[in-house]
Order: sequence, then structure tokens, then C-alpha cells
Amino acid sequence: MDMAMDESLSPLAQPGSSDQQQIASASILLQIVMLGLAFVLGHVLRRHKIYYINEASASLLLGLFVGFVANVSNTEAHFRQWFNFHEEFFLLFLLPPIIFESGFSLQPKPFFSNFGAICIFAILGTFITSIVTGVLVYLGGIFFLMYRLPFHESIMYGALISATDPVSVLAIFQELGTDVNLYALVFGESVLNDAVAISLYRTLLAVKNHPLETHGFMSAIWSFLEIFVGSLSSGVGVALICALLFKYSGLAVHGLQNLECCLVVLFPYFSYMLAEGLGLSGIVAILFCGILMKHYTFPNLSEGAQAFTSGFFQLISSLAETFVFIYMGMDIAIKSHSWSHVGFIFFSIVFIVMARAANVFPCARLVNMLRPASRQIPMNHQKALWFSGLRGAMAFALALQAVHDLPNNHGEIIFTATTAIVVLTVLVIGGSTSTMLEKLDVVGEANGNSMILDGDDEEMEGLTTNSDDGHDDNGFDNGHMDPLTQKFQELRKSTASFTAIDKNFLKPFFTKEDKRRNSTDQAPNGKFRDVHVVRLLESFCIVLLVFLCT
Amino acid sequence: MDMAMDESLSPLAQPGSSDQQQIASASILLQIVMLGLAFVLGHVLRRHKIYYINEASASLLLGLFVGFVANVSNTEAHFRQWFNFHEEFFLLFLLPPIIFESGFSLQPKPFFSNFGAICIFAILGTFITSIVTGVLVYLGGIFFLMYRLPFHESIMYGALISATDPVSVLAIFQELGTDVNLYALVFGESVLNDAVAISLYRTLLAVKNHPLETHGFMSAIWSFLEIFVGSLSSGVGVALICALLFKYSGLAVHGLQNLECCLVVLFPYFSYMLAEGLGLSGIVAILFCGILMKHYTFPNLSEGAQAFTSGFFQLISSLAETFVFIYMGMDIAIKSHSWSHVGFIFFSIVFIVMARAANVFPCARLVNMLRPASRQIPMNHQKALWFSGLRGAMAFALALQAVHDLPNNHGEIIFTATTAIVVLTVLVIGGSTSTMLEKLDVVGEANGNSMILDGDDEEMEGLTTNSDDGHDDNGFDNGHMDPLTQKFQELRKSTASFTAIDKNFLKPFFTKEDKRRNSTDQAPNGKFRDVHVVRLLESFCIVLLVFLCT
Repeated sequence: MDMAMDESLSPLAQPGSSDQQQIASASILLQIVMLGLAFVLGHVLRRHKIYYINEASASLLLGLFVGFVANVSNTEAHFRQWFNFHEEFFLLFLLPPIIFESGFSLQPKPFFSNFGAICIFAILGTFITSIVTGVLVYLGGIFFLMYRLPFHESIMYGALISATDPVSVLAIFQELGTDVNLYALVFGESVLNDAVAISLYRTLLAVKNHPLETHGFMSAIWSFLEIFVGSLSSGVGVALICALLFKYSGLAVHGLQNLECCLVVLFPYFSYMLAEGLGLSGIVAILFCGILMKHYTFPNLSEGAQAFTSGFFQLISSLAETFVFIYMGMDIAIKSHSWSHVGFIFFSIVFIVMARAANVFPCARLVNMLRPASRQIPMNHQKALWFSGLRGAMAFALALQAVHDLPNNHGEIIFTATTAIVVLTVLVIGGSTSTMLEKLDVVGEANGNSMILDGDDEEMEGLTTNSDDGHDDNGFDNGHMDPLTQKFQELRKSTASFTAIDKNFLKPFFTKEDKRRNSTDQAPNGKFRDVHVVRLLESFCIVLLVFLCT
Repeated sequence: MDMAMDESLSPLAQPGSSDQQQIASASILLQIVMLGLAFVLGHVLRRHKIYYINEASASLLLGLFVGFVANVSNTEAHFRQWFNFHEEFFLLFLLPPIIFESGFSLQPKPFFSNFGAICIFAILGTFITSIVTGVLVYLGGIFFLMYRLPFHESIMYGALISATDPVSVLAIFQELGTDVNLYALVFGESVLNDAVAISLYRTLLAVKNHPLETHGFMSAIWSFLEIFVGSLSSGVGVALICALLFKYSGLAVHGLQNLECCLVVLFPYFSYMLAEGLGLSGIVAILFCGILMKHYTFPNLSEGAQAFTSGFFQLISSLAETFVFIYMGMDIAIKSHSWSHVGFIFFSIVFIVMARAANVFPCARLVNMLRPASRQIPMNHQKALWFSGLRGAMAFALALQAVHDLPNNHGEIIFTATTAIVVLTVLVIGGSTSTMLEKLDVVGEANGNSMILDGDDEEMEGLTTNSDDGHDDNGFDNGHMDPLTQKFQELRKSTASFTAIDKNFLKPFFTKEDKRRNSTDQAPNGKFRDVHVVRLLESFCIVLLVFLCT
């Protein structure tokens, strides 16, 4: 499919084509070997509990090493092309499985119970980080601290460098067993934040390229919301259609598992390409598609297909993830960088650390203001969140795009700085996470079990009971709160009632009847349910259509 | 990875790059929709037992339709590029999973018990078909029946058009339940024959490009054997190393299934790229890698990984297979063909039908001469074999290569003719297979059960017992045979003794001890086994090294 582009654009594949194919094979061979090596290395490191060099760092170093060797040994140009990082390949083929898997493997309970906080960190926080970084970089340029970028470019740089990567930090979090709420915060923030950063970057680029069509700040916000909500609805829509298809198609029978799996595997990719094809953000679409497919489609599959698809998505995403770091390493080692802007890199690092602090601590304060005393985000969690802002493939891919998008060598400078930041944060933050987490006292048995998770079936039960008795977990009474907190409690009730809607209407409508649950639930509100289900479906379809049409 | 090529070769991805990515997404979206549609269509057709249009034809027609619409509606050039069939993409990414799965899903018993016959049909037979077709096309040119191709080009055309496709005919065979021996013959021939055709085509191309280095016919044969045996050993070697790795690595424990699967999935691709990188035939390598991985690696995996990998390879190959036909259809509809050479196409079809007859019937006669009366290939099986010579993606990909390889418009003519032959045979032969098989009286219960298969564990037992008592299945005595038949019986004994070696030495050496078998087998030749195992391994390593070094 991707070969698609090379040939019609260039007169290659002349008599030398079989040689070129041989070179292509050799480079793929090398990449497979590296991929295998990275897996084995990662396994060995994990087995010996060596945390100061993790899987992602190992892959990155492996890629850097091979790229360096290829550079020194002066390999043939055609061979080297296979080592270059192509953001189109990354965005179309490597990123979708990674993001989908992170949505699909999400533990819904801690994620949804922290959803408000995650949104604050990811949406508001990323805005803050982008703007603070951008302004600081701009001011740094004005005061001759570093290379002077124009204001618009500075903000774009701020947006692209705000995309944090969930990969290696989370692997260590899982390994060491931290508090599930902290895990959900870090995970949720890093995933959603990619989506926000990419939307923001694209919005800024659109504003830059078509300055006449835009009318200032509000229209940029509007265009951002359009991208974000549109993408979200296309992901949600595809997942729900998929759920209904598998509910009614009767494919979950013996002998059709292959067909079932083939179709399930196509849907996430469909949602990604649909969003991208509409000019929206595929990453937001596929993330929500993953979350909803796990919730609604997964229960409709046959048992064999359930086991298979979980394994399949995990496999593909592991391969893609490891490959991304190798690929990045090779590209960094092979490309020539202008290291003359060391000052720019140094101050960039200082500024992103400051900007992340300006994101995490005020946002955490806001969240704590809105939360009851029992559910405050403690300071050590805030520090862990601040610390885990590792920059990875998303920032790298956006920086590569910036090379094409920004004129006057600005793109190149941004790219070099981003490269340095990615390598440094992956190696340094990735390597010191375990030490840091231990120092912050957020690891270990006590923390790991602070919120015991139930089975998948009961995933949202916790939220529902919260609202049922009007008290929260520890019996804190709503009556004695200030107005703001009370308002938020209402909001929280509405999320809780969303959970109730999900349990009573959405889940029964989109998934097959679960016999165990039915026997106890069905009696009280059988008819009531049917009427509401139809209304809900209607309103959903209307909402979907409206968003797709705009 | 593949994007690798487009960018460095062309100055695209300028400001318009995000538009281009949008177009790329839209075309991938369309292809996903078609893929999904093709699966659903195939399912519906099978469910309603409509055999005159099968899955492959449906996919091809779907591709043709969309390509035609894209052509008529005059879509943008960038959009159309995604619809072009790129033989490099096909050979590097779509073909490997298809061929591997055919090796991996092979039922070893009927395949190995017909191995001699399959080799005769695939190797000798494909030689015959290629040369007969080539000579007839050349003569047709001389006698002004059709466009005149030079002799060398005619033989190359003969080689590439000899690659038969296993896809759709076999699906119907499986559906209708034919004789397993016939199934093994058709299947084995069509898979091995691709490998022979591609080796032959490449040998001829090498002879054409470097005429000085070659010394006639014998050297061509030698170079063919080198490619074939070298590829075979690289596939076998990778599979055996993989088996040993999984036997001793201790990965088959709970919690490491993802790592186990990631590594298993990389090995077949490794063997393919190894062979291609060495200038050998990846298709031969991956086929034998598949057969041996099923036999030796598969038993070493954990139970979960076994279930998963079978499903994984099947899924990937189904997707690739269906996509190949869609892809081919789109390319055919979009490319401009020179239909002025209708005569060439017509006579080509007549000649390939004749050439296939010249392959099947004499080879079957040869096989029957060497086989005992009980195992003769009956006439209706021969006819079924002759009939099932459908041309598919392999011939198409080779023809696309020929466009680059052959000058003076010869490549284009060959490509157009091959395209027409592929479409006609897929639609006509694919569509009429069930009728034909019923007319030939090779379908139905009686035939399907003519050779009942045992479980996987006992897969080669049948052959071993044959040699043990010196009689074959029905007690036919060796004493009363003519010398040639007797000689072949010895040969058959040697294959049988290979099966014994496999059972007693190779299988225990490469796979984990199977407890059931051990309890009965171990006592008699425990020590004897160990000594021989070491020797066998030594000799194998030497053989492998020799082949890899040449």
C-alpha cells in the first residue's frame, strides 16, 4: 500500500529493481533482528530487575548504535533510506495500533473515576504547557538567551513538545505496582495529551497557512474543539456500530472465528482513517474507539475471538512500540543535525520542565479544590506526575512535520531540539523513574493495593453506588460544602448517572444479554428500558450526524 | 518502513503534506471498507452455497469496480497511486504471510505421503509447462499467429505464466470435501510451483542480463538448483534454530506469552528476508520454514501461544489474500492496457491450456509408473489437477516485474496478456470449479473420507509402518515388481526411514519431550538415540553452512 508512492513518483525499478529489492530485504532483515534483540534485551533487563535502562531506552540505544554504524561505514543511499523515520509511515501504520491498544487495555474504573482530573491535566494542562513553553521560548529569543523564533513558531514548538509519551514510564509503574489512581492519571494524561497536542499543532498550522480565514483566538479554540469533538464522535460512532454489528450478525459461532477476527481488526483502523480522511485527528478517534470497543464490542465476541483479539492487539502494539524507538534511534543517528544551537536545546529543556510544573501543580490545585478531602491528589503524586513528562515518538513525528511546515530553517532547529529532548528524556527520565518513584514513596504493596480492582463485569459499579446513596466512599456528607464544591458534586453525580445510563441502557442495547446480570436486574424496569433505549439511540444518531456533517 | 522510499526520492511533503496524508488516509479507508465488504460478501456467498462466484472472484470484481469508478471519475493522481499494484509491496509484505500460512496449516501426512508426486508435478512439471508455453509462443510468433516475442522472452513469459495460484480452487476443494490425496496434490503443486516459477524467472533474467557469465543450459540448471536448495536450507535452518530457541529459552511460562508470540511472529519473516537478502527465493524459504515451524517449533510453545499463533497467521494471511485480489483488481482497472494484441492473449490462453496438459498427464503417467497399483492417480484426479491451473497474484507480480525487466514493449505485452489470463482464470476456473469437480466425481462424502486423517501427533505414523513390514497399505508384495518400481520402493523406504529418523531423533531433539510418547518409546533405544542425535546435528550444521556459504 505504501509502496504506492515511491514508484509513480520516481523512475526507479528499472533493471536494477531486483538489486533494490535485495537491499530492501536486507534492511528489513536488519530491522527484524533489532526488533527481536530489543525484545530479548527488554526481557533480560526486566528479569534481572534492572530499571535504570528500560525497554524503550534499550530499543532507542540499539537504533542509535546501528544508525551510527551505518553512518560511519558509509552504507549505500538506498539502504539508508530504510532507516529514515517517515512521519507518514509512523502516523498511518505505527501509531494507530499503539494508541488503540492503550484504549483497549484501559482499566475503565480508575480511568473513569479520574476522568475529570485527566481532562483537566490533558486539555487545560496541555494548553498551559504549550503556551508557557512557547512564550518562554519567544522571550528567550528576545532576550538573546537562545535562537530567536517568531511568536507563532514558538507556540507551535510549545505545542509539539508538549506531547508526552506513555511508553516507558508506565511499564515501570506497572512493574513496581504504584497507586492505581496515580497510574490512571499519568496514563490518561499522556494518552489524551498526545491527541490535544496534535490537534493544537494542526490548528496553529492551519491558522498560519490561512491567516485570512481565521478571526483570532476564539476561532482557533473553536476549530480545536471541532477537531477534538469530531474525532471523538467518529471513534465513538465506529465503535458503537461495530458493537451492534457483532451483536446482531450472529458471527460468534463456532467455525467463523477467523471472519469475526478479521472484521474486528479492521474497525479500529477504519475509525482512524475515517477521522484522518475527514481532516480530523485519528489518534483521538482510535483512542475512544478502543475504549468503547472494549466496553461494548468485546462482550459480543465469541470466547475464542475475545482471547485472540486481546492478544492480537497487544502483540501488534508491542511490535509497533518497540519498532518506533528503534526507528527513531536509527533516524537520529543517520540524519545530520545542526548542533550549533546548543543554547536553544539547553534552554528548551529548562523551559519545558518549568512549563510542566506550570501545568501539573496549578491543575492539581484546581482538581483538589473540586474534589472531596478523601480524594485529594497528594503532593507526592503531583511530583510523580510532574516528573513523568517523558517526550517520545509523537513529539518526534510532529517535529519532523515541522521541518516541512516551517520555513527559514526554523523547522530544522525545532527538529534538532526535539531530537535531543526525546533522547535525553527517554534515557534520563526513563532510567531514573524507579529511583524517583521510590523516593516519592508511591511504590510498593501498600500503594499498589490502595484501590483494589474488581473484575471487568463490575467495572463501573463503584461510581454508581457513589451516587446512589448521596455520599462518597467514606461517608463525607454533601451538605457542608462550599458552593463550588457542591456544583462539582452535581457534575460528579451527572457522570455517575451517565454510568447508571450506561449500565441500564447503553450496555444492554449494544451488548448481548448477560444472563447472570439479567436474572437479577431485569424485573424492575423492563419496559422503561425499551422506551429509553430507542430515544437514546435516536439522540445519539442525531448527535453523530451533526458532528460528521460539520 | 516502506514510506522509506517515497520521500527521499521525490520532493513531496512540502506544505501540502497534510493534504497528502489526508488523501492517503482516504484511500486506505476505502481499501479497508473494500476488505471488510469482501469478507462479508465471501461469507454470504459461502453461506448460501453459491460456488460460481467465490471469495477471490468477489474481491477481484470489487477491486475492478472501484478501480473503474476511480478511472471514470478521474480522481486525483495522488489518490490513484494508492490503487496501483506494487510488486515490491506485494513481494515484501503481502506474499510472505500467505505462503507461510500455507506451509504452517499444511496437513503433513497427505503432503509427505504425496511428496514425490508433488515434486514431480511442481519441479519437472513447471519446467515442462514453461518450456512448452515458451516454445509455442515463440512458434506462434514465427508463424504469424500472434505478436512475435524473441526466444528468450518467450521462455521467460512461459516461466512467469506457469505460476499457478492455490487460493480459490482450494477453498472450494475444502468446502466440498474432496479426496485428501487430490487435495494434497493440487495444494502442494500450486505452492511449490510458485517457488519454481519465480526461481526459473529469476534465473532466466540473470542469464539474459549477464550472458557472458553463463555457460549454457547446464549452468542455468545449476544456478536454479543453487537458488532452490539455498532458499530451502535457509528456511529449514531458521525454523530449526527457532525450535531450539523455544525449547531451551523457557519462555513457555505464564506471563511471558506476549514476548513468546512477538518472537515467534518475527521468525518466518526473518527467514523470508534472509533468503531475499542473500539473493535467493524468500517464498521457498518461508514455505519450508512454515512446514518445519509447525512440526518442530509449535510443540515447544505454551498452550496459549499455540492457540494464538495459529489464529494470528491465519488472520494475517486471510487479510493479505483478500487484499491481493482487491489490489490486483484496482490496478487492472486503473492501468491502461494495449488491447491491440487480442491475438496474443487468445493464443496464450490456448497454449497455457495445452502446456498444462503436457505437464499433468505425462507427469501423472510417470508417477503412476513409480507407484504401486493401489496408489495410482486415477484419470479423474489427473483431469481435476489439469483443470485447477488458475493463475493468480504470483504471475501478476512477475508480469509487473517483466514490464521493467524487458525492453521494446515486450514487457507491456506480457503484462497485458497475463492480466487478461489472471482475470479470466480466476473468474472462469474459480467459478466453474464446483461444477467441474462434481462432473469428475471427486467430491462428496465417499471421497472426502477416503483417507481418514489422524491427529497431529500421529501424523507420520502411516509412513513408518509402511516400511516396517515391507508391505504397503493393502498388503501388495514388493517381490513381484519390475526393477524400476523396485528401485522406487527403495527410495520410498528411504523417505519412510527419514520419517523414522524424524520420529526417533529430530523430533525429540528439536521439541520438548512429549510425555505420552516417552513412556512407551524411551526404553529400547535410549543411548543409541543420544549418539545419533549429536551426529545428526553435526551433519545438519555442516550442510547448512555449506549452503549458506555458496
